[in-house]
Amino acid sequence: MPVIIHKYGGTSLGEPYLIKKNAERVADCAKKGNSIVVVVSAMGKSTDNLISLANEVSKNPNPRELDMLISVGERITMALFAMALNDLGLEAISFTGSQSGIITDTRHNNAHIIEIRAFRIKEALEQGKIVIVAGFQGVSVEKEVTTLGRGGSDLTAIALAAYLGASECDIFTDVEGVYTADPRTVKSARKLEKITTDEMLELANLGAKVMYSRAMLLAEKYRIPIHLRSSFIDEAGTIITQKEQGEKNMEEPAVHAITNLDKQAMISIYKINNSGNYVPRIFEELADKDINIDIIIHNSCKGETSDLSFTIAEKDTTEAEKIIKQIITSNFICIDKPLTKISLVGLGMSSYPGIAAILYGTLSKVNINTYCVATTEIKISILVKETDSQLAIEMLHRAFNLDKIEKESGFPIIQKS
Amino acid sequence: MPVIIHKYGGTSLGEPYLIKKNAERVADCAKKGNSIVVVVSAMGKSTDNLISLANEVSKNPNPRELDMLISVGERITMALFAMALNDLGLEAISFTGSQSGIITDTRHNNAHIIEIRAFRIKEALEQGKIVIVAGFQGVSVEKEVTTLGRGGSDLTAIALAAYLGASECDIFTDVEGVYTADPRTVKSARKLEKITTDEMLELANLGAKVMYSRAMLLAEKYRIPIHLRSSFIDEAGTIITQKEQGEKNMEEPAVHAITNLDKQAMISIYKINNSGNYVPRIFEELADKDINIDIIIHNSCKGETSDLSFTIAEKDTTEAEKIIKQIITSNFICIDKPLTKISLVGLGMSSYPGIAAILYGTLSKVNINTYCVATTEIKISILVKETDSQLAIEMLHRAFNLDKIEKESGFPIIQKS
Repeated sequence: MPVIIHKYGGTSLGEPYLIKKNAERVADCAKKGNSIVVVVSAMGKSTDNLISLANEVSKNPNPRELDMLISVGERITMALFAMALNDLGLEAISFTGSQSGIITDTRHNNAHIIEIRAFRIKEALEQGKIVIVAGFQGVSVEKEVTTLGRGGSDLTAIALAAYLGASECDIFTDVEGVYTADPRTVKSARKLEKITTDEMLELANLGAKVMYSRAMLLAEKYRIPIHLRSSFIDEAGTIITQKEQGEKNMEEPAVHAITNLDKQAMISIYKINNSGNYVPRIFEELADKDINIDIIIHNSCKGETSDLSFTIAEKDTTEAEKIIKQIITSNFICIDKPLTKISLVGLGMSSYPGIAAILYGTLSKVNINTYCVATTEIKISILVKETDSQLAIEMLHRAFNLDKIEKESGFPIIQKS
Repeated sequence: MPVIIHKYGGTSLGEPYLIKKNAERVADCAKKGNSIVVVVSAMGKSTDNLISLANEVSKNPNPRELDMLISVGERITMALFAMALNDLGLEAISFTGSQSGIITDTRHNNAHIIEIRAFRIKEALEQGKIVIVAGFQGVSVEKEVTTLGRGGSDLTAIALAAYLGASECDIFTDVEGVYTADPRTVKSARKLEKITTDEMLELANLGAKVMYSRAMLLAEKYRIPIHLRSSFIDEAGTIITQKEQGEKNMEEPAVHAITNLDKQAMISIYKINNSGNYVPRIFEELADKDINIDIIIHNSCKGETSDLSFTIAEKDTTEAEKIIKQIITSNFICIDKPLTKISLVGLGMSSYPGIAAILYGTLSKVNINTYCVATTEIKISILVKETDSQLAIEMLHRAFNLDKIEKESGFPIIQKS
């Protein structure tokens, strides 16, 4: 009998009545004759609360002990979820990450799954039980409790889907699916019927917190189709699938979604003397201080001097400026902030020149200046002033027809004017 | 190197700053060259909160899942305690009940320890680490998480003390020790320097919630001396010891403490026909409804009829009366309530006739009527009206010189007038 995986996020389990409500959905699904494994996150903000407790007793909590501490959040929900199912007259049993056989490496707080030995889950399913699994956690090869880092419960769900050969992997959350743009910003933003893991990967990296990169990479690797949907309304969400084998050179390029990340800054340094080895030193020193660099534009003029621009989070600008001025004393440094990074995501975009044309044309029509552009296979990112971002996103959303839909593919179409 | 056990109760760990404060005490003790195992309870009311959550999702929470749920409380404190010690520059490691090798039977929610396999604790101690153990929990022979019931963390501490051959077992709590009477009721109540496990056992059964019976029985069995003390002040508490081998017939009888339990009721049934098998039927039916009977006085007159009195909790009187009236229709039933059970506890009391004389003499002087008396080897219990109890306890406390102390023994003396 094929197995169905349900994963419920923290907001979907934030209160006892929500746990009961989701248990009813699982019960309905089980009564149709399905074998079900439910992967649960910790209730609401409980993991954050546990981390706050840790910070109250220690300036620098020991990573092993932190895993011991924060792994309890999912244990609470798994037990409550199993009880709620029992109360509905169904046989259910909860398993911790360790009991589920989620074997990880020894990297505490950010462990990676190396093997699944879910014998107890298989046995319980064979006995007709519904299995509830604590997400986000595992046991290391040294028999210590580990946690999988941000988005860890999604990883648990996808890894178990792969191991059990699940026919469905439904990720229930507090959003209704993947949108063409942030619905809070863009009124005409539309839920996508489907999207590829590649594109989701870009969206995850670009700050759309719906799914994290590691989960997408795992789904891609094991070709697990995911149904991302709301636990609060009974409606289809977005199917996240892999590209079909024969689909590598899709003829139809498409912008599928727009995402935005505020509070960015761009630092530009002009006419850097190339003989001074300044550029690598700047990057090294910034890395030492944990300042993350996003987009880099390095324009070397005839080998003598070069211009360097890069983007960082706005909060890091003061420290970055200090570091740069210690290395380079005489050059002109320009800092632009606050900026918003707007990214267009879609398959085969880079090979389709029309997209850049639409992008620039649209923004220049409303006099929005772009600070920098970066492209990948399936993404174009631009930076604009934060004050311009709302208008820019709305104009681009319309320009790429994200508010309309092509019936057959479920994807929006690009207006080929 | 001898091992010292510290056990901290929930109130002593109710806030992060309290965990840090107790970690400092443990650190000081470790710096003196001691090997230490710290057994921790759940923070404050956290176990009760978890049980409330369970009741919100299920009318009748599954016992296995309930253990999964409530065992997280101690996991939280153990991790926080270890972090706090790390922050003080000490190597510490926390272990769950399962990791500590607390092997139990399969009775969920009230499991009994059947074996200790604390290999990981021993190994960590040998490596010079301070070991923090989650109290109240174990792992069953079927590899399921179990909890040990009320007072379970004390059981963990005493069991580990026995296994590790600990030289000290300090139980830190929110009271300063064992008192001659409840200090909230009797102003002259005095902390005892020492008391025997036998006497503590009686006190535990009599409603003094300082230590539970099962912990005392375990301490008695393995002859573990316990130091019951406050985590809030730095002062000696009460040493709970076993009777010395040669001490069996102590010549000096002594009342060591007075304890009281309110909200009791006495039911008396007169002239029961002995041929009707009524008395056993009454007890069977009451047991079926989980009504606990405390003291029984059954006075059979010449084999034809008998008078029966017994005490129960006041809350059970309505149901008990209903049950009795269904069995016995024509007899006169008298219910006295609310009553208080006052108990005098001390070694060798029953063989010392003077104690009953002082007891009755003291109470009759102030016209307090006693409803029933029951004696054991080391205890005399009487029932009085709740409105009389305060005066009765104060008078008896003075009459037995519990406010004074015999210097050599640490025990109060009986005035042999």
